[in-house]
Amino acid sequence: MKFLKYAFFSLVLFVPLNLQAQKLTWAEVEPGVWKAVAGKPETFDLLKAAGAIPYHTGLVEMGTTDFPLTKTAITATIVDGKTYLRFPLDKSEQLYGFGLNFKTVHQRGKILTLHVDNYAGKDDGHTHCPTPFYVSSKGYGVFINSARYIKVYAGTAVRLDSKTPPEIQDRNTDKNWKSHPYADAVDMLVPAEGVEIYVFGGPTAMDAVRRYNLLNGGGCLPPRWGLGFTQRMQRLTDAAGAAVEAKAFEDKGYPLDFIGLEPGWQSKSYPCTFEWDKARFPDPEKFVQDMLKKDIRINLWTNPYVSPEASVFPLIKPYAATHTVWNGAVVDLTIPKARDIFFGELKKNKIDIGVSGYKMDEVDGGDTYLWPDVAVFPSGHSAEQMRQTYGLMMQRYITELYHQRNQRTYGLVRASNGGGSLLPYVIYNDYYDHHDFITALINSGFAGVLWTPEVRASKTAEEWLRRFQSNIFSPMAMINAWASGTKPWTFPEVAEQVKQMANLRMQMMPYWYSEFAKYHFQGIPPFRAMDLEPGFKVVEVAKSTSNKKVNLEENPYEDVSAKEIKDQYMAGENILVAPMFTGQTSRTVILPKGKWYDFYTGKLAGDGQMITVTPGLDKIPVFVKDGGIIPMMPVMLHAPKADQKVDIEVRYYGEKPGAYRLYDDDGETFNYEKGNYSFREIKVERINGEITGHISGAITGKPNTIGKVTYKMMTE
Amino acid sequence: MKFLKYAFFSLVLFVPLNLQAQKLTWAEVEPGVWKAVAGKPETFDLLKAAGAIPYHTGLVEMGTTDFPLTKTAITATIVDGKTYLRFPLDKSEQLYGFGLNFKTVHQRGKILTLHVDNYAGKDDGHTHCPTPFYVSSKGYGVFINSARYIKVYAGTAVRLDSKTPPEIQDRNTDKNWKSHPYADAVDMLVPAEGVEIYVFGGPTAMDAVRRYNLLNGGGCLPPRWGLGFTQRMQRLTDAAGAAVEAKAFEDKGYPLDFIGLEPGWQSKSYPCTFEWDKARFPDPEKFVQDMLKKDIRINLWTNPYVSPEASVFPLIKPYAATHTVWNGAVVDLTIPKARDIFFGELKKNKIDIGVSGYKMDEVDGGDTYLWPDVAVFPSGHSAEQMRQTYGLMMQRYITELYHQRNQRTYGLVRASNGGGSLLPYVIYNDYYDHHDFITALINSGFAGVLWTPEVRASKTAEEWLRRFQSNIFSPMAMINAWASGTKPWTFPEVAEQVKQMANLRMQMMPYWYSEFAKYHFQGIPPFRAMDLEPGFKVVEVAKSTSNKKVNLEENPYEDVSAKEIKDQYMAGENILVAPMFTGQTSRTVILPKGKWYDFYTGKLAGDGQMITVTPGLDKIPVFVKDGGIIPMMPVMLHAPKADQKVDIEVRYYGEKPGAYRLYDDDGETFNYEKGNYSFREIKVERINGEITGHISGAITGKPNTIGKVTYKMMTE
Repeated sequence: MKFLKYAFFSLVLFVPLNLQAQKLTWAEVEPGVWKAVAGKPETFDLLKAAGAIPYHTGLVEMGTTDFPLTKTAITATIVDGKTYLRFPLDKSEQLYGFGLNFKTVHQRGKILTLHVDNYAGKDDGHTHCPTPFYVSSKGYGVFINSARYIKVYAGTAVRLDSKTPPEIQDRNTDKNWKSHPYADAVDMLVPAEGVEIYVFGGPTAMDAVRRYNLLNGGGCLPPRWGLGFTQRMQRLTDAAGAAVEAKAFEDKGYPLDFIGLEPGWQSKSYPCTFEWDKARFPDPEKFVQDMLKKDIRINLWTNPYVSPEASVFPLIKPYAATHTVWNGAVVDLTIPKARDIFFGELKKNKIDIGVSGYKMDEVDGGDTYLWPDVAVFPSGHSAEQMRQTYGLMMQRYITELYHQRNQRTYGLVRASNGGGSLLPYVIYNDYYDHHDFITALINSGFAGVLWTPEVRASKTAEEWLRRFQSNIFSPMAMINAWASGTKPWTFPEVAEQVKQMANLRMQMMPYWYSEFAKYHFQGIPPFRAMDLEPGFKVVEVAKSTSNKKVNLEENPYEDVSAKEIKDQYMAGENILVAPMFTGQTSRTVILPKGKWYDFYTGKLAGDGQMITVTPGLDKIPVFVKDGGIIPMMPVMLHAPKADQKVDIEVRYYGEKPGAYRLYDDDGETFNYEKGNYSFREIKVERINGEITGHISGAITGKPNTIGKVTYKMMTE
Repeated sequence: MKFLKYAFFSLVLFVPLNLQAQKLTWAEVEPGVWKAVAGKPETFDLLKAAGAIPYHTGLVEMGTTDFPLTKTAITATIVDGKTYLRFPLDKSEQLYGFGLNFKTVHQRGKILTLHVDNYAGKDDGHTHCPTPFYVSSKGYGVFINSARYIKVYAGTAVRLDSKTPPEIQDRNTDKNWKSHPYADAVDMLVPAEGVEIYVFGGPTAMDAVRRYNLLNGGGCLPPRWGLGFTQRMQRLTDAAGAAVEAKAFEDKGYPLDFIGLEPGWQSKSYPCTFEWDKARFPDPEKFVQDMLKKDIRINLWTNPYVSPEASVFPLIKPYAATHTVWNGAVVDLTIPKARDIFFGELKKNKIDIGVSGYKMDEVDGGDTYLWPDVAVFPSGHSAEQMRQTYGLMMQRYITELYHQRNQRTYGLVRASNGGGSLLPYVIYNDYYDHHDFITALINSGFAGVLWTPEVRASKTAEEWLRRFQSNIFSPMAMINAWASGTKPWTFPEVAEQVKQMANLRMQMMPYWYSEFAKYHFQGIPPFRAMDLEPGFKVVEVAKSTSNKKVNLEENPYEDVSAKEIKDQYMAGENILVAPMFTGQTSRTVILPKGKWYDFYTGKLAGDGQMITVTPGLDKIPVFVKDGGIIPMMPVMLHAPKADQKVDIEVRYYGEKPGAYRLYDDDGETFNYEKGNYSFREIKVERINGEITGHISGAITGKPNTIGKVTYKMMTE
């Protein structure tokens, strides 16, 4: 009786809450991409801030697929003015993504607050790009289109009414008692009264990643020169110093496509004036043009905080937030007039005179220097929303300036977020752990951004070379000498090896450029986790790393997470890179199923197994899949010009027939958006130990930069 | 022209925001305590959760004072559904409080998110008691009565329109460029559409702290036995084991007032059944009563998470949150019916049979095991609100059970918050850094809570003794052996010194008890920072610690914060304690202005200066102020009973005439609330090297436990 009375009482209590649960309606907004709306979404969100427009053609080409989850298992409830989201999670699933994490690839079991921030050494959601997007090993993806600090419980929160509850154990006596019981859902708290939810179909995790990037408009396509080598000079350099640096690269025979100017080109910085320093740069236009004549472009560092001493300050002040950053005004980038003034300043005497791009610093955090969450912006957008999108908007509107000139740019930025895949910027930070830099490179492929494991300074020649070797297999091959003043040849004992690596970067430009084209047109991240590679199965890893047979049924996600692989990655369609770290002389590499060959020698390395390699100091282990084709060009000190014909050496590995789509366009303009590009089909076959190669003909009316094509059989 | 147009445009933009700025009206709700309401405060807040009722009499006795700030300089704005608060801050001000911090006493320059949590090694606001209360060195206090995660910028956020802006520097060339410019305000973000704000007048910081505690109802008054010694037994002990333990203390002559039973008294734990384990405790009532006959009380560990295997589970389930903690149901303590059931279970066969109190574990966090922020509670209170108040409510409602029996309790809890000063619980955690434990003890005096630097295990006899020595000068003298099974005599080489310290704790009971009475009736924290002691000036410290003369005008808060003192503290009205840490043989102590004397010898130690002391291993440096009186009782193994007369030795230090208010009541009931107590006035004077002492007579009708009073001149 008593119990019944309580039960009844509780029902009364529950009713009002249940009424708040939303029924989600899923609309297929693009093939294989579904959208649902919970509550009343905010008018300002990540996709709007990024100006993302889906690359419909690419999504259509992928075709459609089934909705990957049980729709009724996805719930949204508006409570306390916030949106609580819940997504189902199987015992055997692993999760990837949730932004640019530095220490972990597997995200199941994490609790994260997705918050644009300076990375502070902990994968807790505070990072330079906390994309609210995750991918499951089961082959689907989820994106939350909110510019808020989203709290994520990635398989940690256990419900009382769970249909697959964890085992109840007695800690008093049960030695196997777990402090973190199994949880069957991903819970999220979006601090807003509504939000747009996107689900991406598979069947593979890669398909979901591709659909996410294509929904963003596709990945960015840098100019060819962006894939060359760049040197960021020490702060306070002057025009003469930059010229001397450029000449040194040429004289010593190191490739160089663009030079970055760090603090010092402006008359004052922190806060910034955005005006050239007259003493260090008496004639900026002549300086920039003289460098361009040497095929060297200039990239300018800045942060966006406007000094009261800047001539633009009086115009900007009405559009500034209540709070400053290093005493600089924070411009409300959501106000068109404010953008006219601010980006007009970044254009004037900079982009106008031939500057190739910007490095946009300190749009990330941390709290101790960025604007506080109590800052008020004139548009009424909250400090939180601005914090989550400032980096996105900086990228977007600078890119638009270049788009107006039909000139591609490629720069650096310290913060991005969901929606930003198309923006041609590479993320960097002040952190410098080589292992974690590689983990970030792996995770960048899940976050819809690019990341560079930049080389700054090193304690030893070995460290210098090891960092350089992985850096050339990344989106931006760069030395950032802003503080150290280092050069590629800073360590004479490895200067020659560094040069060989820089040359290799240039030789591989046709490959890199084609892979970025696939990032743009197909959404395939050029640098990504092994977990996205067919035939790479964690269960394989488990078997090959442990003697005891692994039973993933009995021992699910704990085991999976124990086998996290974060020291090797895929670079484009055909290449597996296994960096070496200071002190290492040998390392293990896990090869996916199928034959893999040594990139340098063409020799068979293994097939779906863990191998141990001892590559020596001169190079790092790189492997090519069976039938893999790597189009190479001759060593050049600068990227080819728009109309310059370049001979191609097609390197072919293994035994299977090989096919490759070689991308071609002018390499500098946005004309590819109007279809002014081509993919040339390369086919190679091995018949009686001899290879025959073929490339489809150039298409009339499209740019054609491909000269003589030769074929090289790497595997004897 | 153009500029004017922009300016006008911006005005248009600003207007709607300015309209949201609240005009705060300050009402003096108690003498020297002002309250303002911003926006629409929530119906559930910290003071309501704690059930705090101001101790009006104590506040009246303090008298009133001026409003300590410029009212117009305090602003509240409702933006984005949140309340932005701003309080003025002078250059020379230092800030204290913001809850139970473990590493820092000075809070200026901090950014904190006040969030009930397990302390994870960083003073970022995540702690066991994140009281939204701060005190300024200028002599005022501010309390935000919100059960939300409040973000605090304690002098870090710089406004564009600041009237005292920081200097603008050029990082390019200015070597003195600061990454953290001076900020002239405390900004707070309260994630709610309104909040109650309290301001506490001075003129001293201590006055503000006292008013805060008195607004909470005054500090807690433990039973006398609570100030004796307590031993928490190893988990899985049984009734016989507890009896053996008690006898060992008696045989060896170590004082013991209560024993704590850790996991194992319940049939199952994590999740908990709240039912005695029949094997280990076949007859709980007989066990508890037998122990009481030996003057030893029983305290029971538990966490509040209800096992599905608990008999009370079916009754509780309707009132449980959607999510579990270690598979245990989380009861919605804001629902009266739920409380009837849950606390009824804690009462039944526990409090009913003489159990003296509870140790309420794991009501703090961390996120990886507590309920998620997306948990829904049947009452509709948010998971956030429940997280901020669960510890408060556990303390409150258990105390009410004892109040109904007119029996005082004294227990342990892992989480508290603003409003909790009156609740008779001491906070503890799993952290174990001795230095940081002392810093927490210092900060507890700003947070309106008690903290014990409990002794658990030690690597060496020295560490064991050093921890024990500071522990007996704390709110709860305790060994927590739940995991280690340690005893006071675990290290034979220091067993005798440990016994002497335990005996000293007992001898000082009249002093401790009187000081807790002052905590209750006057709001004076019994354990607190030097910064609250008259004559203790950081500028003094600066002068005595640095050769160069310090100019606080030129070099304000940076210098102040550099001189943070966190390794010595005040224990009651007259005592300064300077703990020794493992490895230390000597240390410096900063004595406030006025003469200070060695507690053990009565010898003059110094006057407003820094001294270096080498106390040896047997004791830690303790000093008594000039004219200081310490009432002592004979060594006893258990606290005196309610009606037991105890002789008092009045120890007198120094030269000045001494006065002390000795508190007396029955020591066990709540009758003091009905005025059934007395403060006996002790006066001691030194005339021609001889001292004369006098104590005011007992008041008829009030409890009188004071036997023969003798006077001892400590200083020759």
